[in-house]
Amino acid sequence: MTQKPSIPKGTRDFGPIPMMRRNYLFNTIRSVFQLYGYLPIETPAMETLDTLLGKYGEEGDKLIFKILNSGDFAGGMKSEQVQKLIDEPDKTAIHSRTLVSQISEKALRYDLTVPFARFVVQHRDEITFPFKRYQIQPVWRADRPQKGRYREFYQCDVDVIGSDSLLNEAELIKIIDDIFVRLGLNILIKVNNRKILAGLAEISGLESNITDFTVALDKLDKIGLEQVEKEWISKGISQEAIEKLNPVIKNAGSNSDKLAVLKDFLKPSSVGTKGLEEIETLMNSVHGYPVNSSVELDLTLARGLNYYTGAIIEVKSLDIQIGSICGGGRYDDLTGIFGMPGISGVGVSFGADRIYDVLEQINGFPSLAQTGTQVLFLNFGNQEVMISLPLANQLRSSGIRCEIYPDPAKIKKQLQYADQNNILVVIMIGTTESMTEMASVKNMKSGEQVIVAFSELTSEIGKIL
Amino acid sequence: MTQKPSIPKGTRDFGPIPMMRRNYLFNTIRSVFQLYGYLPIETPAMETLDTLLGKYGEEGDKLIFKILNSGDFAGGMKSEQVQKLIDEPDKTAIHSRTLVSQISEKALRYDLTVPFARFVVQHRDEITFPFKRYQIQPVWRADRPQKGRYREFYQCDVDVIGSDSLLNEAELIKIIDDIFVRLGLNILIKVNNRKILAGLAEISGLESNITDFTVALDKLDKIGLEQVEKEWISKGISQEAIEKLNPVIKNAGSNSDKLAVLKDFLKPSSVGTKGLEEIETLMNSVHGYPVNSSVELDLTLARGLNYYTGAIIEVKSLDIQIGSICGGGRYDDLTGIFGMPGISGVGVSFGADRIYDVLEQINGFPSLAQTGTQVLFLNFGNQEVMISLPLANQLRSSGIRCEIYPDPAKIKKQLQYADQNNILVVIMIGTTESMTEMASVKNMKSGEQVIVAFSELTSEIGKIL
Repeated sequence: MTQKPSIPKGTRDFGPIPMMRRNYLFNTIRSVFQLYGYLPIETPAMETLDTLLGKYGEEGDKLIFKILNSGDFAGGMKSEQVQKLIDEPDKTAIHSRTLVSQISEKALRYDLTVPFARFVVQHRDEITFPFKRYQIQPVWRADRPQKGRYREFYQCDVDVIGSDSLLNEAELIKIIDDIFVRLGLNILIKVNNRKILAGLAEISGLESNITDFTVALDKLDKIGLEQVEKEWISKGISQEAIEKLNPVIKNAGSNSDKLAVLKDFLKPSSVGTKGLEEIETLMNSVHGYPVNSSVELDLTLARGLNYYTGAIIEVKSLDIQIGSICGGGRYDDLTGIFGMPGISGVGVSFGADRIYDVLEQINGFPSLAQTGTQVLFLNFGNQEVMISLPLANQLRSSGIRCEIYPDPAKIKKQLQYADQNNILVVIMIGTTESMTEMASVKNMKSGEQVIVAFSELTSEIGKIL
Repeated sequence: MTQKPSIPKGTRDFGPIPMMRRNYLFNTIRSVFQLYGYLPIETPAMETLDTLLGKYGEEGDKLIFKILNSGDFAGGMKSEQVQKLIDEPDKTAIHSRTLVSQISEKALRYDLTVPFARFVVQHRDEITFPFKRYQIQPVWRADRPQKGRYREFYQCDVDVIGSDSLLNEAELIKIIDDIFVRLGLNILIKVNNRKILAGLAEISGLESNITDFTVALDKLDKIGLEQVEKEWISKGISQEAIEKLNPVIKNAGSNSDKLAVLKDFLKPSSVGTKGLEEIETLMNSVHGYPVNSSVELDLTLARGLNYYTGAIIEVKSLDIQIGSICGGGRYDDLTGIFGMPGISGVGVSFGADRIYDVLEQINGFPSLAQTGTQVLFLNFGNQEVMISLPLANQLRSSGIRCEIYPDPAKIKKQLQYADQNNILVVIMIGTTESMTEMASVKNMKSGEQVIVAFSELTSEIGKIL
């Protein structure tokens, strides 16, 4: 026998049980997106290299899976480039980078954000703004695979673009709340605002270096305030500024406590004050809905700071420790990279794989019967099966998922099949049952067995299920 | 402004309307698969080149999209191979073929059949046989794009493996019937059996060249019997055999007429007689269900003859002429290519893109409201919106898809938005409505406008929708 086949590292097969669970998860997310008026779009797995390169930084570019041009790709290689491969055999890594664009012009999408931006620019004339879209598709990254990190994984993105209103941020928080309530998960929704971070940096005299300021602040949870302050000092922030910042950062009270302290502190900064107003408006709408989950102002939240321009949102599981399970924010120039500036948007992305892991760990998935077979007709031979066919048909017309065991195998084997597939009800129609038009119906869970007239079958099975 | 971005040729973006229609189509297909006890699986977009190459013939191999190895791929190129690129610049096409395996070890799946076979072999110890699975995923082919042919498209496959029973074939035909009835499409299901073809070839003295025999026969529809016979003669079939075959092929009667003629004709061939018995058993079960669509024995049906070993199934639309919209058959050695011989299976694949085209052309999609927004709350300013928030919440709890226009834009613009998004109901809550706790509710279709108490909103809207 040849070697067992395998799949590329970092990728996964999903068998029936994980698939049913994943479908449950995606369907829950999708149905909430739809309830709030978001519309589905899908983009191709492949984008042109032009669309993708340069959007994720140098490290990101390396992680993009490039697709080899079909046919005579070597015909596209420039001869001086090929010569270099021969002349400098120890520098192939460098030459590979130059060669890529000569033998590849397409790549697999790395996220859903850049394809969405491309979509909006390409189809701007067909789109009615504000455009509320959701997109649930896999993305691919040539990352080093490790526990919980895959080379193919799904993203579930939901965005509104073409509207500045803070109501959108509030709605997204309500959507987050709604989804996790339906999934039965306990969460903490953290919010911040890039303008507040800008205000804090401004007042601390780090205006010109807001990145250093927030990169350090972002680590507060992990390294503690003392280390954060050390890092600030190393970046040139003054002792005086640190002392001023200290009570603001340390403030662990309620949202209104934090807001009160901030209000005072940020007064000299107009951008900071604007950020504060935005957070207050947002909190107001959040209470207006109301949102069931806790929503907490977290000044240390930064998430891809260079990208976000207003609200920043992140969701933590309170059930298990697993990092962020959802996040996003307001961006003011999504489509600028494709030559369509000035379109503001806000969106969040749900980390399906992590949410799956949380649900699995807390046994949060509903019974597997959800989309699996509910009823199995045993097979006692061709004659009897002919009687089962229209009966199975009848059950299916009532939405009952059922199957007929295809072979007249040993009954023990057929019952094992029912068992292994978590089938709740087994129907036996042998010679006697055929003649009397009565079926033996066995509840596989309770072991109880009853005789049911063919004409009553659908309603009786309905009662058991 | 920079150039408008675009997508790779042969790929497509799906905006909200096509997406809602596609979801309707996939959901219909998926729900029927589930009703018959088929379980979902998914495999990665990328497979190893080893898994894919050599499974689709030489032409197929060329159409597989290969993924460039990450990082220093040029380091994998053998120096003698690189030298050849320099020495023979006019032969890059040939050298490309050799180079592929040095710079690529993964590729995008070309269909769902080979990944499924790989899945079964890889997970054989976890699978309970008979294994009934369905799989709905995109596949990629570097085909020349043309009308109706794409480089990325979905396949919807449903298979049972590990069971020889002809009941499986009957069930698949019932599934086809069920799906197209639900979609409201008129179809003709054609069936044949590879063993009957083998019998006909045997009796015609073409036993050793069944491929030539059926390749010609397969064209009957297009070129007519005379041309088919000419082709047969050119392949060495005798005039006598042709005269014998003539009444069998010409027979355009009912299935039972055809079967009667065949029975007589195939008597000397044991394989042909076996095929006939299989078709008769199948037809019997098909009547037992019963199946609503016409099921017709078509001796000219061959479909990838080398692959199928028993039943061959193909579905034609009776609504418009578009070629096959679904097809499949029985295969006896799916997993043999991966070293696990002797597993018989049968399956069919639904051509989602073609079925979509048929539905579109006959206006067969249900109203777009299906998953789009049903109700829009107009935005009269922050004060009024705060009142709308919990009301929208209430509607959503009852499953009504609604949204609040995010900006206090001109009412005309907001109504245009409702119009362009096919939103049926618009709710207006201005100052008066806020004070009286009554909303103005406008039916966008009839133009009718009523005043509804906040407390009655959900039930009143429910009546309109």
